[in-house]
Amino acid sequence: MRILIHNARILTMNEHYDEYLRGWILVEDNIIAALGEGTPPSNGATIDETIDVIDANGDLVMPGMINTHGHLPMSLFRGLGEDVDDRLFRYILPIEREAITSEVVRIGARLGAVEMMLGGVTTTADMYYFEQEIGRVLDVAGMRGVVGQTLADFDAPDHKSFDQGFGLVDDLRDEFANNERITASIAPHAPYSTGPKIMERVAEYAANNSGVRVQMHLAEMKSELQWCAEHHNCRPVELVDRAGLLSPGVILAHCLEVTPREIEVLSERGVTIAHNGRSNAKAGRGIAPVEALRQSGINVGLATDGAMSGNTLDIFAQMAPASMFAKLLGGSRKCLPTRDVVKMATIEGAKVLGLGDKTGSLIVGKCADIIRVSLSSARMTPIYDIYAALVFSANARDVTDVMINGKWVVKNGETLALEQPKVLADALQTAEKFNKIVQRIDLSKH
Amino acid sequence: MRILIHNARILTMNEHYDEYLRGWILVEDNIIAALGEGTPPSNGATIDETIDVIDANGDLVMPGMINTHGHLPMSLFRGLGEDVDDRLFRYILPIEREAITSEVVRIGARLGAVEMMLGGVTTTADMYYFEQEIGRVLDVAGMRGVVGQTLADFDAPDHKSFDQGFGLVDDLRDEFANNERITASIAPHAPYSTGPKIMERVAEYAANNSGVRVQMHLAEMKSELQWCAEHHNCRPVELVDRAGLLSPGVILAHCLEVTPREIEVLSERGVTIAHNGRSNAKAGRGIAPVEALRQSGINVGLATDGAMSGNTLDIFAQMAPASMFAKLLGGSRKCLPTRDVVKMATIEGAKVLGLGDKTGSLIVGKCADIIRVSLSSARMTPIYDIYAALVFSANARDVTDVMINGKWVVKNGETLALEQPKVLADALQTAEKFNKIVQRIDLSKH
Repeated sequence: MRILIHNARILTMNEHYDEYLRGWILVEDNIIAALGEGTPPSNGATIDETIDVIDANGDLVMPGMINTHGHLPMSLFRGLGEDVDDRLFRYILPIEREAITSEVVRIGARLGAVEMMLGGVTTTADMYYFEQEIGRVLDVAGMRGVVGQTLADFDAPDHKSFDQGFGLVDDLRDEFANNERITASIAPHAPYSTGPKIMERVAEYAANNSGVRVQMHLAEMKSELQWCAEHHNCRPVELVDRAGLLSPGVILAHCLEVTPREIEVLSERGVTIAHNGRSNAKAGRGIAPVEALRQSGINVGLATDGAMSGNTLDIFAQMAPASMFAKLLGGSRKCLPTRDVVKMATIEGAKVLGLGDKTGSLIVGKCADIIRVSLSSARMTPIYDIYAALVFSANARDVTDVMINGKWVVKNGETLALEQPKVLADALQTAEKFNKIVQRIDLSKH
Repeated sequence: MRILIHNARILTMNEHYDEYLRGWILVEDNIIAALGEGTPPSNGATIDETIDVIDANGDLVMPGMINTHGHLPMSLFRGLGEDVDDRLFRYILPIEREAITSEVVRIGARLGAVEMMLGGVTTTADMYYFEQEIGRVLDVAGMRGVVGQTLADFDAPDHKSFDQGFGLVDDLRDEFANNERITASIAPHAPYSTGPKIMERVAEYAANNSGVRVQMHLAEMKSELQWCAEHHNCRPVELVDRAGLLSPGVILAHCLEVTPREIEVLSERGVTIAHNGRSNAKAGRGIAPVEALRQSGINVGLATDGAMSGNTLDIFAQMAPASMFAKLLGGSRKCLPTRDVVKMATIEGAKVLGLGDKTGSLIVGKCADIIRVSLSSARMTPIYDIYAALVFSANARDVTDVMINGKWVVKNGETLALEQPKVLADALQTAEKFNKIVQRIDLSKH
């Protein structure tokens, strides 16, 4: 299978940030075979009847975006209890306890996958319950994913004990052992919801299963600092480090509450970080020190978090906030410039997930994870700086076509493998069930 | 002329926040004649051949959005010198001095108007040079606007002296004296660029011309505080108050640098405020105390600022940041809830511009400024809370149709009175001229 896209503005996000104002890219099977400026050379890209030739009509072709942290099925909670301070304990945990089944997880993961692909996300990290179902949904959808089975000591809907939870991780590992696009992962929820012993056991598990990545929420909020101080007389980073959990390949979500010394420790340990700027801000928690983290050498990716926290699952909605928050924190327009933001959304995000050799930039030999973005709206006119246009003017609806691993998953704004009307109808039906639980909860409070 | 829109989800933004899950609205000439839940009654909205009946197919119908501060022609500077700290003095002022003519203003204003209408903005406030041209563009486009002739002591492209500047205000006032949609306004640029004497003269002018509103940048940045302290031994709010400029009908942009006591003063004087959250954050300047301002009784609207500062001219791109910034400032998810944000984007914004009796909510007798927003995307599914969906999930591209003063200006995502391809082509040509100036400036710096 060969696909040639030409007459495209190409943003490679390679190490030189090469751009082609009028370029072409050749995909063979699932791989980027060649790309360049101008007219495709006849030797590199022979145009014959075996090749699918696409005129991009001046649209932007760039690497697919990487979402480094999320909870796909929580799309079903989008906007529920918005602006309510105790919504987690009031609504979300009770609904999860009562209504989260593998079937509901499948429905929510489909909704999330459709939204992500339409918004140009080609790779996502995820941590939730019934994670095997989520891996299957991403596999069917055609997406790339790092799927993490959550372990937590509160009433998890899919495991009654940690032993049972580790069993689910085994199942996940075994099912996706040879999958080209889906990577199994183990996801201890957070320090306060697993505790030191389980974190030690997770570290051991990861050491014995080199393909299985660790994902974890860390240093997210003041209540977590309090818990660590009260129960272990230390701060979250130290507690997790003591458990031996900080090592290369570990993906930490949030990391708001980190001191300069802790940033050094995180950098020395070789972890990577998922920045959930929008989710953190919406909760009133603060701004993660993204520039300091990156300056220490840590790879930091952009992340949506679950839609119950950030409301959308596209990286376009994360880029402008990430840059604005860093500029507010640093007090200057120069902080976290737009090119760095696009880097975090693509190649740096891929590195965060350990997939930097496969995706995140348009380089010969890499997997063909490619999106096409319309630049022709008034909102994007004129373009002096393509990075500024992407970060501050573009939105998810500007994505028209999405290719993952050499296969189209979105064409002309329509998902292919997942049937959108059915996915949305199932989601609406599930939301009605959730709404009934919410009404019961609200009634019982009056 | 009668238009009936039915089968719509209607958000009225009236004082009771009435919503109709399946509603209808009847427009006669330029006025909202009736609206309600369910099937339109045959007495109120007789369906005959004289009426245009539109099935909204479950889409949202809501008031058009109000942009309370901007500089339309600066759309031509969008993304120029992005992330460069001294871009104002390095690029923007030199380009303005050399290249801003009435023709360029017209081209930029058209670009801005197209972008705003496509994004659901039906009313905009503006302050720039050659403002008469901008009023004419908005008039032709079919938009509602408060157009402010800027007065400034730096090299303004359209006046060499303040006397000449006041003459331009006279011209503006005279041209739009009887215009239904365009209101003339006088816009002293800022305290540091006009000085106390001119501010006094503006106050007098406004007192003698009751229809002419005052718009001004105030308390925007640290350098302004310094200038006021050095030259007048006071803070900006005091300086402007001493000049007699703070009175009902005065629209102040920014107001970041205000103390609790100054907020009281602003409230007592009856001014209104345009909140440019995105523009302020992008410049690393800080977060305006929106909740404190509103709690003091001041009407605060949302604003895009010019696209050289905020990059887009739609209010959807302002809503999420406004809420997030307030939550960060207040440290809680409860701060500036989404319903308040939608209020600021609509009826409160209309009040900021003195147009609360004409636009900003769907009420019988008001002008028909109405937008239709698609709710059917995965990104907007499910909807537990329409305000959360609008603030945190919707974007400018979800707007499909826009009516201003009873006339369609956008249908199916296409502008009617302004020809988009021509508008964009003119803008691109002008941007090329700007680019040449930029190249010359950059060369001279090396």
